[in-house]
Amino acid sequence: MAPMASEPSVLKGTAFADLVLQGPEPPSLWNDLAGILRKAFHWRGADKRFTLSMCIMSILQGLFPILNWWKSYSLKFFQNDLMAGLTLTSLSIPQSIGYATLAKLDPQYGLYTSVVPPLVYAVMGTSREMAIGPVAIVSLLLSSMIQKIVDPAVDPVSYRKMVFTVTFLTGVFQFAFGLFRLGFLVDFLSHAAIVGFMGGAAIVIGLQQLKGLLGLGHFTNSTDVVSVTKAVWVSVHETWHPENVFIGCSFFMFILAMRFIGRKNKKLCWVSAIAPVLSVALSTLVVYVTRADKHGVNIIQNVNSGINASSVNQIDLKKGYVAESAKIALICAVIALTEAFAVGRSFSAINGYRLDGNKEMVAMGFMNIAGSLSSCYVATGSFSRTAVNFAAGCKTTVSNIVMAATVMVALELLTKLLYYTPVSILASIVLSALPGLINVQEVCFLWKVDKMDFLTCVGSFLGVLFGSVEIGLSVALGVSFAKIIIQSIRPRVQILGRLPGTDVFCSIKQYPVVCQTPTLLTIRIETSFLCFINASFIREKIIGRVTEKREAFRSVVLDMSNVVNMDTSGIAALEELHKELVFLGIQMAIASPGWQATHKMKVARLVDGVGEGWFFLTVGEAVEACLANKASIALEC
Amino acid sequence: MAPMASEPSVLKGTAFADLVLQGPEPPSLWNDLAGILRKAFHWRGADKRFTLSMCIMSILQGLFPILNWWKSYSLKFFQNDLMAGLTLTSLSIPQSIGYATLAKLDPQYGLYTSVVPPLVYAVMGTSREMAIGPVAIVSLLLSSMIQKIVDPAVDPVSYRKMVFTVTFLTGVFQFAFGLFRLGFLVDFLSHAAIVGFMGGAAIVIGLQQLKGLLGLGHFTNSTDVVSVTKAVWVSVHETWHPENVFIGCSFFMFILAMRFIGRKNKKLCWVSAIAPVLSVALSTLVVYVTRADKHGVNIIQNVNSGINASSVNQIDLKKGYVAESAKIALICAVIALTEAFAVGRSFSAINGYRLDGNKEMVAMGFMNIAGSLSSCYVATGSFSRTAVNFAAGCKTTVSNIVMAATVMVALELLTKLLYYTPVSILASIVLSALPGLINVQEVCFLWKVDKMDFLTCVGSFLGVLFGSVEIGLSVALGVSFAKIIIQSIRPRVQILGRLPGTDVFCSIKQYPVVCQTPTLLTIRIETSFLCFINASFIREKIIGRVTEKREAFRSVVLDMSNVVNMDTSGIAALEELHKELVFLGIQMAIASPGWQATHKMKVARLVDGVGEGWFFLTVGEAVEACLANKASIALEC
Repeated sequence: MAPMASEPSVLKGTAFADLVLQGPEPPSLWNDLAGILRKAFHWRGADKRFTLSMCIMSILQGLFPILNWWKSYSLKFFQNDLMAGLTLTSLSIPQSIGYATLAKLDPQYGLYTSVVPPLVYAVMGTSREMAIGPVAIVSLLLSSMIQKIVDPAVDPVSYRKMVFTVTFLTGVFQFAFGLFRLGFLVDFLSHAAIVGFMGGAAIVIGLQQLKGLLGLGHFTNSTDVVSVTKAVWVSVHETWHPENVFIGCSFFMFILAMRFIGRKNKKLCWVSAIAPVLSVALSTLVVYVTRADKHGVNIIQNVNSGINASSVNQIDLKKGYVAESAKIALICAVIALTEAFAVGRSFSAINGYRLDGNKEMVAMGFMNIAGSLSSCYVATGSFSRTAVNFAAGCKTTVSNIVMAATVMVALELLTKLLYYTPVSILASIVLSALPGLINVQEVCFLWKVDKMDFLTCVGSFLGVLFGSVEIGLSVALGVSFAKIIIQSIRPRVQILGRLPGTDVFCSIKQYPVVCQTPTLLTIRIETSFLCFINASFIREKIIGRVTEKREAFRSVVLDMSNVVNMDTSGIAALEELHKELVFLGIQMAIASPGWQATHKMKVARLVDGVGEGWFFLTVGEAVEACLANKASIALEC
Repeated sequence: MAPMASEPSVLKGTAFADLVLQGPEPPSLWNDLAGILRKAFHWRGADKRFTLSMCIMSILQGLFPILNWWKSYSLKFFQNDLMAGLTLTSLSIPQSIGYATLAKLDPQYGLYTSVVPPLVYAVMGTSREMAIGPVAIVSLLLSSMIQKIVDPAVDPVSYRKMVFTVTFLTGVFQFAFGLFRLGFLVDFLSHAAIVGFMGGAAIVIGLQQLKGLLGLGHFTNSTDVVSVTKAVWVSVHETWHPENVFIGCSFFMFILAMRFIGRKNKKLCWVSAIAPVLSVALSTLVVYVTRADKHGVNIIQNVNSGINASSVNQIDLKKGYVAESAKIALICAVIALTEAFAVGRSFSAINGYRLDGNKEMVAMGFMNIAGSLSSCYVATGSFSRTAVNFAAGCKTTVSNIVMAATVMVALELLTKLLYYTPVSILASIVLSALPGLINVQEVCFLWKVDKMDFLTCVGSFLGVLFGSVEIGLSVALGVSFAKIIIQSIRPRVQILGRLPGTDVFCSIKQYPVVCQTPTLLTIRIETSFLCFINASFIREKIIGRVTEKREAFRSVVLDMSNVVNMDTSGIAALEELHKELVFLGIQMAIASPGWQATHKMKVARLVDGVGEGWFFLTVGEAVEACLANKASIALEC
């Protein structure tokens, strides 16, 4: 392309004009890829000169944060952790049993999951307060997705086998995310999407509890509102036992009342923590004494005693089977990490320390792999239990060890006592944990601040409620990404003016006090990536502005300070724009493009086309060069 | 949230600091939607005060650009257009017949498509040079997608019915795109993707021609390289007639030679235009004289004479049927528009006028609707014929009318003469049009300038070649959108420094001459949309930079001039960043955020959290306020 522009003479005076085109070259594709790989495998601190033993110690300290603080661990700390751990256990045992039924597993699997994963996390995790174990959302996810492949009512052995395989793969995914620093995958679910998803899932979980609460025999496997309501309607007309509802509801009221007391009086916060276990004990006693199980009250019956058995031989990595499991595991891995990060971050912020996302993912992955080999299903950080742990004054992850030990004891000695526990009490315990998942205040905030985020939230909420868990997630992902694309498609083009008495150029829309020069149009392109999807739109917008009053403008200054990068369509659009402006007899100048954009313009010879002298470091310089070049009357205000 | 920051006292001195937070409010969601709708239905020029007749005239002139220039049309112009039209016809007739066979229709349908659509376009289109008619890519698209539903060899009537329905819907889509100003849909296929797609499609079309060239009876319906090669291999071992190859190849050479002559000598450019029709005439004569059809040369045989019949009753808008057709029509509509725009824009740029994208879409839509009612299939602007039209000196769209009229005459009188035309000659005419679709030079340019664009190109090329047309398009779309998402996921965070002796702050990476203030970190966030996908990454990057040398920094200035908009995750990340900085005893200041971002920060009460006094119009002001506030020693260089 032949240079079409004469070089403006004023330029020689400005000191920095020639800097613009001397930016660094971007790394080549291969350097870029190699850099990413090197980063992925690079362990922090390993780049200094180390002896081998120091290197190993550094890696071990990276993997096991417990090595950093165990030496300074004191008896005072242990007292706190012990109390916190015991309080935690009293909430953990009933919740674990309840979530196990939500996951369509026998109650003991919930308890198993409160043993191994907390132990692993205690030595590997970086959060001090997080309470590990089964949680409601993941239990629902697992059961709703796996039962589409294997029906737990028909073939519980195969169902369990798949649960362990999915748990194993969930761990593998989480471990890989941490190792390869793919933490950004967790960001794919925006905060707004999660608020909606959690709210929808809470309602779905609540509806699932109707089975236990009403003592229904048959129930639907679907999770959407319509199917569940229909199933309840049909079942209620057949057989149901009001005794179940009575026990469930009265203890539900009891738990809520205790929580209210705990919230009113900070000193009595342990009351709300032990309410569930108290309810279990009381209701079991009542049923045992009155033999209510003979009058229609559903009871848990046998719970296997003894601690976790090995489940190594139940993990099945056959082809085809693995593909199905991996799909479920990927969703579980992301959701479990999302919940754990939300929990961990909100408490680490209170205590003023930072969570290391990659280390957390490695720890979570390892704990789920270990769990899957010892009859546990997917565990993660639970919000309600972490709050109790924090309120009870835990200092370190030792409270998790205390809890695991206590649950182990319970597994050995107390499972027999659960025989007469009514099923409806588990439903009421799960129900009582749900209000914390529905965040109406946040939804109002979203509506007020960002309508698109509100839409994402409502979309995923309705998706979960009326479709399924996967539909809800897909809607959330779809709307979130559509938001980014929409933002890229129609970037704004702002007309700039000079702030009186300064060299600062601002948007005339944002700052109406600025003045424009009559013969000159200064335009800022407000996108960081000038690409195929917006390049021709921007070109048309600029040409539209220029031709609105055709005779008026003699120069156009493009402020490209926002344009970090561009693709070949962006370059083509600028080229075409330049040609059109030349055709109209208008000079084009480009101010402060990003270095990647500059490099591409150089390689594509656009710089030669426009003329090297028409690239400037600041809008001010560009404006002065244009005014000097055209010798137009300086009508500056 | 309680205000955590003390107000810096220096601010009172700067005149514009309080402007930052007084930006305009963004329009509400409903205003925004209403604005889009109003724009969609607003016809240009209709907003001034008009009498009814002037208004109608303005709308008519908008719809029919011919009304703008017919008064100034002169005999000289007509002479040029007549010559161009006749030259065009000589290329149009053989190409139309060839493309009709590619679309698996009888030869006359190609000729029909060169009659009605050009006539409609002549009165409605804004391009002066574009030659309208059937084109190779769209013919391939139609046949490859429709034959999956109806086999043209088994049921040609149903196949034709579907072709007309698809053509009708293509027109409807194009018309709607123009009416609702959805021209950006055409941008979804990036230039790089189209280069790859065209190249792949050209090879696929070339392979399809082997059937005609080798005179094969049976052939595969698949379009991918592997199936076609296999089919050719099998067929060649069964029955083929070298006479076909001989005729086809010799005339192919003849056409190429003529084109070479035309290119070498500009005055003889008509030679290359009439070479195809000459080949048809010569080969037909040869076959007729030698009766070669009795020795295995495949001939066209009967071609129905007479101009276009009505096909109104062949358009079937039954439910289900329409859904299938609409899917194909949408792809055809976008590809046809993409090709027409590429053709139109490259020639309008040479002649120095601008195409109105929306009017073009309305014209194309109307011409295809009219075409579908008169036995035509999808027509669009053809590159090879437009080039001939331009080279032959056309002035206006009248050359299209001349061509349509001549083709009409040919349909009435000359179809009988096509009886003995060998099929292989059509294959060689289609083949001779393909090199123009393969743009190796552009691929090299993509590789040099933008590796991601190169990847898009190669992806769609391989997708078409080894998969199918739809797979190629999906790959192209997928890679293109992935590019935008990737660009959003990992935005850069640039450390800024002051350009010595000025108030200009630039990236230290781009301009190594700048100096940094030791106690102060100035960081630019290089994304135009701070959202869920990049907010926590940016927060971590900034915290990482700050804690690299913990004791050094007392203030952090965030240059948010690039951040046009943010969502609630972006706000949350900034809030968290502010809390973490407060915890580290570091003051945070924000410089020149975009007005949408400012508005959201105000609504979300982030402005109150950071402190109103810590928002600045320029980085320079922010830096000075920070330095004054902390009374740090001014170590400016």
